[in-house]
Amino acid sequence: MPSEQAVPAGIRAVPVRRSGGRIEDDFVVVEQPLEIRVDGRPVVVTMRTPGHDAELAAGFLYAEGLIANGGELATVRAVAGESGDGSQAGGTRLAGFAGDRVEVTLAGQPAAAAAPAAPDAGRAFAATAACGVCGKESLDELERLNDNLPVVARDAQGTVPVAMLETLPGRLRGAQELFDATGGIHAAGIFTPGGERLCVREDIGRHNAVDKAIGHFVLRGAVPLREHILVVSGRAGFELVQKALRAAIPTMVSVGAASSIAVEMAAGTGMTLYSFAGRGRGNLHVG
Amino acid sequence: MPSEQAVPAGIRAVPVRRSGGRIEDDFVVVEQPLEIRVDGRPVVVTMRTPGHDAELAAGFLYAEGLIANGGELATVRAVAGESGDGSQAGGTRLAGFAGDRVEVTLAGQPAAAAAPAAPDAGRAFAATAACGVCGKESLDELERLNDNLPVVARDAQGTVPVAMLETLPGRLRGAQELFDATGGIHAAGIFTPGGERLCVREDIGRHNAVDKAIGHFVLRGAVPLREHILVVSGRAGFELVQKALRAAIPTMVSVGAASSIAVEMAAGTGMTLYSFAGRGRGNLHVG
Repeated sequence: MPSEQAVPAGIRAVPVRRSGGRIEDDFVVVEQPLEIRVDGRPVVVTMRTPGHDAELAAGFLYAEGLIANGGELATVRAVAGESGDGSQAGGTRLAGFAGDRVEVTLAGQPAAAAAPAAPDAGRAFAATAACGVCGKESLDELERLNDNLPVVARDAQGTVPVAMLETLPGRLRGAQELFDATGGIHAAGIFTPGGERLCVREDIGRHNAVDKAIGHFVLRGAVPLREHILVVSGRAGFELVQKALRAAIPTMVSVGAASSIAVEMAAGTGMTLYSFAGRGRGNLHVG
Repeated sequence: MPSEQAVPAGIRAVPVRRSGGRIEDDFVVVEQPLEIRVDGRPVVVTMRTPGHDAELAAGFLYAEGLIANGGELATVRAVAGESGDGSQAGGTRLAGFAGDRVEVTLAGQPAAAAAPAAPDAGRAFAATAACGVCGKESLDELERLNDNLPVVARDAQGTVPVAMLETLPGRLRGAQELFDATGGIHAAGIFTPGGERLCVREDIGRHNAVDKAIGHFVLRGAVPLREHILVVSGRAGFELVQKALRAAIPTMVSVGAASSIAVEMAAGTGMTLYSFAGRGRGNLHVG
């Protein structure tokens, strides 16, 4: 275990009694709320692992269609919360609720017109949620938001070099520093078509990890990611495929299983989806 | 693999090309939207695995503080969606969006008065989300909702029979039928203090699995669960601990890691939290 001084922001030492009876410190992943405000207005709260909060906010707003690219962000400012001892957190007993905030200002008007399926801005602000679905109030709303997913690479299935894709979970794993310390945190990575690792982000929330990784490129004006590969440490479900498709990512690799709707979305858009990927194994979804 | 006729509702066969090149059918977990309506009003959409939808709705409404017990539910009716071929799903290309619905009617007034921390009913309806946090729009709202978590069993830590708790993941695993077929689905189980398995539910969403398991007891008028044990197949994070505490569950066992805020919530309420649990191993959080 690293010394106290070397502990990164995303993990924390807590005392545990091991099965055998010893009491010792163990590292857990920090999970704390982050509030995202746009033009002074609270948009959403997400439980996330501190670190790369500006990327998280940018990736979230992009995934939700509230911005179409990083150029629509005038400023993105991360504001640290209270000290974390709980005494200043408005009377709640939970120190963890001393949450942080990212304050975003938009350049000009919100991106209601530019985003393909965003309802009017006021409505969107009330309804969006970090995980892509569970803040939605009705099926109609969910369908509207997913009516115009991009066709990403209709002919890729079958021509993708599967042997290379199978190496990517290992390359992702090599950058999962917080996982090494805790054994309990998701990761998402963006790779080039040739398999080069460009950006890996970890978070207790799978959707946050993807938002951070894509947000990294949003902040640099480098979306969409039409030739890139998204690799996730867990399963491929609705929200993550949705986020990948919003960035026009044509290839997605998951260490875990794919869900039925992930398979459908991949088939419907031409995305190459490779699940249960690892050295010498994987399932390419072909229908 | 079971025959076509024997496939349960929660899984589906899809064609995959294995790493070696063979194309064959594999089972994936079904992930489909469920809309929950209360008194005719859409409250939330959650991506869930079909099955036990009435329990899911009851458990969700209970976890969000919209009802204080099952007696406040007049009717809970599950309504199947379209056929699933996509042709009738409002023009979207995704068959999976032919979602289902649970229609709930409340007995008398909404439970705003009975639920400890629920804001007025109209507000709550607009802001709630299945995962307990990510539909929340501001930190204030999140703090309000968690200001009055029950003190469950302040003296339990240290007196709990850890050796018994370590057997529970195995007992849960024995009932994870959909996991056997797919390798990609969460489970939650409610056990007696003696370790007897009362109810196990599986879902692609960890929060849904917990809502279903607790909802099972909500529908039977058997909440709170002041002496029971919640066992989850994954990690112990904010939402799941929150849901357990709303049901006054004093003991929680997770196969995966605990997060920092889960540890804090357990310490703050007296909940016994045992993470990374399995045969001969586990971490009892003691501070």
